[in-house]
Amino acid sequence: MCKIELLPGERLDQLFTSPVKIIQNREVFSYSIDSVLLSRFPKLPKKGKILDLCAGNGAVGLFASQHTKASILLVEIQERLADMAQRSVHLNNLEQQVEVWNMDLKDLPQELPPSQIDLILCNPPYFKASETSNKNLSPYYLLARHEITTNLEEICTVAQKVLKSNGRLALVHRPDRLLDILNTLQAHKLAPKRLQFVYPKENREANMILIEAIKDGSTDGLKIFPPLYIHEEDGSYRPEIQEIYGRQ
Amino acid sequence: MCKIELLPGERLDQLFTSPVKIIQNREVFSYSIDSVLLSRFPKLPKKGKILDLCAGNGAVGLFASQHTKASILLVEIQERLADMAQRSVHLNNLEQQVEVWNMDLKDLPQELPPSQIDLILCNPPYFKASETSNKNLSPYYLLARHEITTNLEEICTVAQKVLKSNGRLALVHRPDRLLDILNTLQAHKLAPKRLQFVYPKENREANMILIEAIKDGSTDGLKIFPPLYIHEEDGSYRPEIQEIYGRQ
Repeated sequence: MCKIELLPGERLDQLFTSPVKIIQNREVFSYSIDSVLLSRFPKLPKKGKILDLCAGNGAVGLFASQHTKASILLVEIQERLADMAQRSVHLNNLEQQVEVWNMDLKDLPQELPPSQIDLILCNPPYFKASETSNKNLSPYYLLARHEITTNLEEICTVAQKVLKSNGRLALVHRPDRLLDILNTLQAHKLAPKRLQFVYPKENREANMILIEAIKDGSTDGLKIFPPLYIHEEDGSYRPEIQEIYGRQ
Repeated sequence: MCKIELLPGERLDQLFTSPVKIIQNREVFSYSIDSVLLSRFPKLPKKGKILDLCAGNGAVGLFASQHTKASILLVEIQERLADMAQRSVHLNNLEQQVEVWNMDLKDLPQELPPSQIDLILCNPPYFKASETSNKNLSPYYLLARHEITTNLEEICTVAQKVLKSNGRLALVHRPDRLLDILNTLQAHKLAPKRLQFVYPKENREANMILIEAIKDGSTDGLKIFPPLYIHEEDGSYRPEIQEIYGRQ
């Protein structure tokens, strides 16, 4: 591992199941369970090209890098977050496999050849720009959580352009946006094929969804995968989550 | 209870949790777990008017009758099944509350005043007419299971006409039709609001969905309810199913 200097407020986090260390900063950006679950949800291509959109500090793509020989491109609009991701790439000696581009994802189709990407992973902003309840956040979290610099429409537009035919887009999102997500995917000829619901505990409503769509696929044959639960009744992680994520 | 005569092949079935007896016939039509779950899924209006479309032998509406003072109209196109339903209504002394109409549901808007129904329950045919795999069924089951005499489009057209504003349509269906269902509901201004997935066992894909939509509602705020499991690993019913459905 390379030696790197951490900035004030930064720490290194690591999953139980992965040697990858990720630079985190509570004030700026920290990955959480949704990034971990997204990185494990789609079947990764063995080789080819994976794109991580709304990459934040790079956690999703960096976790994925350990399970594929595909090259991985992380795209993040916020300079500070892209810099954290870039330093994590360096820290883990992954420069040969993982690249970080600090740019607006909507400009990607001008930078990438069309129809070349095998898989897109995306943990996008969950809330509409109009949902102001959480707007007393740091500007970093504000942009990461609210659809201010990008939205589902833009993500799907880009995905349709850069994915190979039958390439896949995998998203993590919130259940109350499910209709929006399914409608926007279909409007861009991205056929939803796999859905998994994540519940905070047993007997609670779902608070997260994982969804995979195939470019130009048919809209038949959607599969609903077994549910995932995060916590036991007492608030501790379920064994299957502890196994990958570590103890609280 | 009235005395009635059962026809050859008919038997009476009853849930653990309900005094209602239902005339069943393995060769013609028998309700199964999907009808039971549908009847328990939506919050029933205390009074007013409930419609049970694709009523079959009347199980859904008859189960519901025990938990509401609303009047219930069962609509079934197959004469033989409507007759079973009618005799079950009589058998349970429910003529004051439950009516059976043997007719094509698409003609309902000519028979009912517009915007009068509080809740529609519907266990429709699950398979497209073009899905021929199961067509070596009796003609009764063929029509009950395949979209031959009706389909989602027709059901939603009728629902939009006869439901009150903010009236609800509750469906049980199959996960591989989820996109179809959500798209068709929205095309008829029926806003999906509650979704529950039913899994045959733990760690299996869902094989049933329960969905409730509100007429003229907003498409925000869909809720995903806790999952239901039917069987234990050894094939016996889960305690929560045994409790309502009886032992196998």
